[in-house]
Amino acid sequence: MSDSSRKRIGVGVLGCGNVGSALIGLLEEQHMVIAERTGLELEVARVAVRSASRDRDVVLADGVLTTDAAAVVNDPDVDVVVELIGGIEPARELVSSALKQGKPVVTGNKELLANYGAELYAAADTAEVDLLFEAAVGGGIPLIRSLRESLSAEPVRRVMGIVNGTTNYILSQMTEHGTSYHDALADAQSLGYAERDPTADVEGFDAASKASIIATVAFGARVLAGSVYREGISSVGPADIAFAQRLGYVIKLLAIAERVGHVDGKPELAVRVHPAMVSADHPLASVRDSFNAVFIEGDAVGELMLYGRGAGGRPTASAVLGDLIDAAGNWGRGTWTPIGSLGEAVICSIDDLESEFYINMEVLDRPGVLAAVAGVFGRHGVSIRSMEQEGLGDQARLVFITHEATERDVQATLGDLRELDSVRGAPALLRVIGQ
Amino acid sequence: MSDSSRKRIGVGVLGCGNVGSALIGLLEEQHMVIAERTGLELEVARVAVRSASRDRDVVLADGVLTTDAAAVVNDPDVDVVVELIGGIEPARELVSSALKQGKPVVTGNKELLANYGAELYAAADTAEVDLLFEAAVGGGIPLIRSLRESLSAEPVRRVMGIVNGTTNYILSQMTEHGTSYHDALADAQSLGYAERDPTADVEGFDAASKASIIATVAFGARVLAGSVYREGISSVGPADIAFAQRLGYVIKLLAIAERVGHVDGKPELAVRVHPAMVSADHPLASVRDSFNAVFIEGDAVGELMLYGRGAGGRPTASAVLGDLIDAAGNWGRGTWTPIGSLGEAVICSIDDLESEFYINMEVLDRPGVLAAVAGVFGRHGVSIRSMEQEGLGDQARLVFITHEATERDVQATLGDLRELDSVRGAPALLRVIGQ
Repeated sequence: MSDSSRKRIGVGVLGCGNVGSALIGLLEEQHMVIAERTGLELEVARVAVRSASRDRDVVLADGVLTTDAAAVVNDPDVDVVVELIGGIEPARELVSSALKQGKPVVTGNKELLANYGAELYAAADTAEVDLLFEAAVGGGIPLIRSLRESLSAEPVRRVMGIVNGTTNYILSQMTEHGTSYHDALADAQSLGYAERDPTADVEGFDAASKASIIATVAFGARVLAGSVYREGISSVGPADIAFAQRLGYVIKLLAIAERVGHVDGKPELAVRVHPAMVSADHPLASVRDSFNAVFIEGDAVGELMLYGRGAGGRPTASAVLGDLIDAAGNWGRGTWTPIGSLGEAVICSIDDLESEFYINMEVLDRPGVLAAVAGVFGRHGVSIRSMEQEGLGDQARLVFITHEATERDVQATLGDLRELDSVRGAPALLRVIGQ
Repeated sequence: MSDSSRKRIGVGVLGCGNVGSALIGLLEEQHMVIAERTGLELEVARVAVRSASRDRDVVLADGVLTTDAAAVVNDPDVDVVVELIGGIEPARELVSSALKQGKPVVTGNKELLANYGAELYAAADTAEVDLLFEAAVGGGIPLIRSLRESLSAEPVRRVMGIVNGTTNYILSQMTEHGTSYHDALADAQSLGYAERDPTADVEGFDAASKASIIATVAFGARVLAGSVYREGISSVGPADIAFAQRLGYVIKLLAIAERVGHVDGKPELAVRVHPAMVSADHPLASVRDSFNAVFIEGDAVGELMLYGRGAGGRPTASAVLGDLIDAAGNWGRGTWTPIGSLGEAVICSIDDLESEFYINMEVLDRPGVLAAVAGVFGRHGVSIRSMEQEGLGDQARLVFITHEATERDVQATLGDLRELDSVRGAPALLRVIGQ
């Protein structure tokens, strides 16, 4: 494309941490390629940072750096805004303001979208500009675009994802090296995969935000983070890991968004995050280390899986860059990709979901225990597919895999099992995902 | 979205085989969902078929079906054209004509794009309408959109794909059940995975067309099918399958598009299709049965893999539908997604590529043979990483894995080996893809 026909687009970047500086580096490296292929001259016009004095990997012209994020959004030289601050405020205010000014926004802020997505999507559609957020889920994996565009009319049944690299790293270490949960977490922290306070990752809050975004995009319906059932991995023990392997499963923290039916013409969705036993021959089972992957099942497309680096500065910046070029090109042509009308969804309680279950409990090693335990399962109509006794005396355990049963019946079963004298401590429970 | 704001878009479908009838069925099933989410009323206005008398799965209104494809393209009620005829002519003429009339085109025609893509992409950009072709590679896998949009500025290093389901099915049967090539092919034919004349699949022509499209989109450069080095799987034997397994590999037919350098400012690309030994712990190794998958390596995004159903009426129709909604929405908003400027590429000869190689030859079982054979390798500077002798007497074989060497040196080695009295028949060769 000739130089004269190129269009200069001013980019305002809010936040210059790992992803922001990787993005600025990529924009510089790929400047010519972008200009030649798309006719866009993307120029980093302003960058908002928390502290102007910190050393950075990127070199910026005088006057580009500022600590005033609002000034970046309002700058007439800024045509497109990239929000990489994270958290709710001031990100929400800044993104809203940019959209109201008719400036497209690219963001990687899962927390913002999981809680205030609906109002922001509406603001973008009203302003007829893009709000793109590939980087919010699965880092460099082109998941959001695939769901929003390629699969926009696909009758999606279920999306199951490994969307948190930290917990996948921890579970992989536990599985492959027999590492304890605490040692694997310490490893993840020393590698920079986990924060000093790992709660958001290990307790599933990060994955729950992503699950709400996936559900919204996959089913075209508003799903808030608060509607997502959530359990983390901190109670997964070495015994569970070992049993999973012996029984032909791998334990993964899954974010699952599923269409279970319709109520009053609205889709009924189940959206949840919890550790699960995944059949060893399922494509998700071989997703190791800190990799992410999302498995999509649709009535027409069949089975799809998208796999890649779910975090890290460069992979995430790659996703931001794809969105940025798209938003800038659309803005230049006076158009945008609508998120489309988002309907309401009915959220199905986890109590009503059916699954197979793995239940592992310490028991007193004496006659009659199995009969008492089996009686409790029977009273709640939970039928047992397989049982193993492990160890003797103080080490005795019973491990069950049930047939399909509702969460409600299984939780009632566990409640009654805890009352039995012969059952020591609280039984462990994991849901089983078949092939 | 209210009924009154909906936009009616007339769809003209050329070809009503598996994919066409699945598409028409999907459009009917998902009509309300599409209308609610996107505001588009997609209406199948005309359908061109080869023979009007054949029974079909789909029911169409009077006057919709015709045997005159040009009349469909020219019909003023047809706003968007879906081309599912396949082959070069008359598809090329029909697609060109639609684009010239300012009608966006969605096609799944790999042969057409691999040979005449450049002129058609240029025609679409001139007319400022979409030419979308997700269905041309990998069926329902959102590969083309990911490469064109998400990764449009990613510094892609290499794309390696299992893009032909028939050959993957055959190789999977040979690997998992010890089936012979001919039995596995017969199986594939009886399941409808392979044509009666399987040449296009088993000799790699289908994969080569797809490789040229992948290279064009991944590297933004014109690559024709004729520039793709091509070998099929018909010479892969049970001994190769068995050795691969023993050495920790799986044999897959790969389409590989790779950036190897720059010549005079143009990217130098190597694009090829051949069976390869893939390390068993590579994500592509676990892609079984008739599934497809494409593994993408980029400097920023790292490793990505997209996996799914590469063929079949419904999965392919799902890809067409995603494109159709996109094209129709863009058309309604008076815009399009440009393919972008495609540069020239320098095609690197396979002779200059480096790889590790697997070489398997029958030899006479007598003293001095290994020394003679090793001498030939040494004279060509090809160094050996491992060697095994298998069998005795008439069954004696030598199996080598080389260190990295150029194709030229290895082919010269094979040429000289064939001259040795102690080597019987032509040695088998496979390229080795590491982790």
